[in-house]
Amino acid sequence: MVKPQTLKGFRDFLPEEMAIRQKVINTLKEVFSSYGFEPLETPALEYASTLLGKYGEEADKLLYQFKDRGGREVGLRYDLTVPLARVIASNPNLPLPFKRYQIQPVWRADKPQAGRYREFLQCDADIVGDDSVTSDLEILSCADMALRKLGFKNFTISINSRKVFGKANPKIITILDKEDKLEKKELLRQLAKVIGSAKKAEAFYLSLKKMKPEGRLKEILEQGKKLNLSFDPFLARGLDYYTDLIFEVKIDQYQGGSLGGGGRYDNLIGMFLGKDVPAVGFSFGIDRLIEAGKQQGLFKNLPKTSTQILVTAFSPQLLDKSIQLASQLRTAGINTDLYPDPEVKLDKQLKYADRKGIPLVVIIGPEEAKKKTLILRDMKAKSQEEVTPKQLLEKLS
Amino acid sequence: MVKPQTLKGFRDFLPEEMAIRQKVINTLKEVFSSYGFEPLETPALEYASTLLGKYGEEADKLLYQFKDRGGREVGLRYDLTVPLARVIASNPNLPLPFKRYQIQPVWRADKPQAGRYREFLQCDADIVGDDSVTSDLEILSCADMALRKLGFKNFTISINSRKVFGKANPKIITILDKEDKLEKKELLRQLAKVIGSAKKAEAFYLSLKKMKPEGRLKEILEQGKKLNLSFDPFLARGLDYYTDLIFEVKIDQYQGGSLGGGGRYDNLIGMFLGKDVPAVGFSFGIDRLIEAGKQQGLFKNLPKTSTQILVTAFSPQLLDKSIQLASQLRTAGINTDLYPDPEVKLDKQLKYADRKGIPLVVIIGPEEAKKKTLILRDMKAKSQEEVTPKQLLEKLS
Repeated sequence: MVKPQTLKGFRDFLPEEMAIRQKVINTLKEVFSSYGFEPLETPALEYASTLLGKYGEEADKLLYQFKDRGGREVGLRYDLTVPLARVIASNPNLPLPFKRYQIQPVWRADKPQAGRYREFLQCDADIVGDDSVTSDLEILSCADMALRKLGFKNFTISINSRKVFGKANPKIITILDKEDKLEKKELLRQLAKVIGSAKKAEAFYLSLKKMKPEGRLKEILEQGKKLNLSFDPFLARGLDYYTDLIFEVKIDQYQGGSLGGGGRYDNLIGMFLGKDVPAVGFSFGIDRLIEAGKQQGLFKNLPKTSTQILVTAFSPQLLDKSIQLASQLRTAGINTDLYPDPEVKLDKQLKYADRKGIPLVVIIGPEEAKKKTLILRDMKAKSQEEVTPKQLLEKLS
Repeated sequence: MVKPQTLKGFRDFLPEEMAIRQKVINTLKEVFSSYGFEPLETPALEYASTLLGKYGEEADKLLYQFKDRGGREVGLRYDLTVPLARVIASNPNLPLPFKRYQIQPVWRADKPQAGRYREFLQCDADIVGDDSVTSDLEILSCADMALRKLGFKNFTISINSRKVFGKANPKIITILDKEDKLEKKELLRQLAKVIGSAKKAEAFYLSLKKMKPEGRLKEILEQGKKLNLSFDPFLARGLDYYTDLIFEVKIDQYQGGSLGGGGRYDNLIGMFLGKDVPAVGFSFGIDRLIEAGKQQGLFKNLPKTSTQILVTAFSPQLLDKSIQLASQLRTAGINTDLYPDPEVKLDKQLKYADRKGIPLVVIIGPEEAKKKTLILRDMKAKSQEEVTPKQLLEKLS
């Protein structure tokens, strides 16, 4: 016997959880489409050379990398941005600006911990081929709208620019990226190690504290007044490829970290194409959106199942009647489950509906069969009534 | 510079192709839900021991298998049935029958050829925990309905039972599985090699030819008269785990092989659970459904893009007007693209809409801005009219 288990950091999503995921994904798709983004999908596996060296040293270590049966070095998708850059380079005739959204899992051989998985669903929207502030604002506005449509209220979009850090050592970015997790003392200690002295680190820290938004960033803040933007000079974002605007979304009461973020990356596509193509985009982690959403009670009215009604099987003789009715209901567009086994006692069939969260149950016993009626039971109200099939169909549609 | 390419047998899906895929997937989801199936998702990676030895020797060789960073032998999902069996075993408290659908990619290190990929999307529906003919018929009926709702007309569901082959050498099944691709002479030659002599092979072949459906299979054919069922004693299905009913879907004019199939597998879950749990289900290959659907012209009226309208950017001075209108349209639920760069000439912006297949374009020039109107251009009719924003909103909703 094989022991049935999933790998650490990997998860099954059972129907009740899937109902929430599908709700979130559909809402995001609607918002993205309303902004003119179109769907894209890319392979789970890419040449390792496509993925390596794009995210930074620490990230490269987390890549699921292996030799395939043909001896090729391959890797599982680490994010959706590098594959997008590869797609742009592979399709030189795509009309630009190219606006795409992409909702697919990514894999990182990270240490599994609360809220951190090795397989998780990402959801990205990007505009490729335009370097204007207008596109930066479209991305920020779309992220803002997505959060609102999901039902979030108290969120902030912190923004900054990578240009703030100039040609600073990339290690500084890695340290600042942890700013909200470290005490100030520890932050200064780590900065000092990279910058050279405690004094210089302190000066650098103070210069960031006093920083005012300038140039492009100032413009974005001014034009984006209706969005929940907030300037944060310590915001750094871990990934190597950002070149200017960076941003991160946080929910006031949620402790699980940022729900997503993004920024401008004007050089990444050039690594594949040989000429730079500007791009800006954002990425949401669906798991965190869901976790934060649950905390805020956003899904509490969502049905556990999409099934609207269960047709029970009263007896082998009457099974045909149940099958017929199920078929009628389905044809009328009603999501209908049929209990397949008339040997199972009716109360067990009702319990099945209850456990699955199916709100309505139909029973066709010998009496009803004779009268061409049926018993309709409301599982929540624990009430029932006798109706004709026609009345049932009218009631449900 | 990194050479931008996908691995052989792996594909990008650009927006136009994604529109078709999403249409097919949404139709399938609707049909599955109407039959009371609920969604499930499982990890891309499983312990190799979970996957190996379930499909047959030939299949095991096609598994993407590797050691992860923790030294565990892991493999990429080969189908959606074995993961389902693992889920059932991992969740002993699931209410049975468990009816789930699952739409996720699977990976097989097969030789890439026309219509055969290394990564492809599968779409499964299964009923676990019931061994009745009613469940077999529910599965067949659901497959039949799915094909109808997709628009297919001339399809056949060939059915057979694994019991027909008794305790025959599993290699016989592998040979019969190729029956529609081999000449009769070659088929007999291969059978003779496994069975022992040409005479016995011929006798076996003739016994199959004369076979009539019996018992459970006969019952299914009788009760499933409304479905496009057809008994085929040569139907074998390659996978090891089937125990009784097997079936395959074919479209008359389509040469690319079966669009999907399935059957009953009453022992597979027992390999994980230690006690047998009956199950029946089917699997569609989305790629073949789409290929066959394209051949039959099923998607020819599908829009290339979900974007309904493009708001152009006339000049830097008038960009604000365009941004405002785009925001209004989006709030009204209209999928709206905004051209971000007013420095690009208007005819190039129109060409962009044309290439993307966006049917309507809005232009706000200085005259219109003054009059608080706009020009609405129909890209297909090549006509345009002047309307107010209010009239535009009324027209579109």
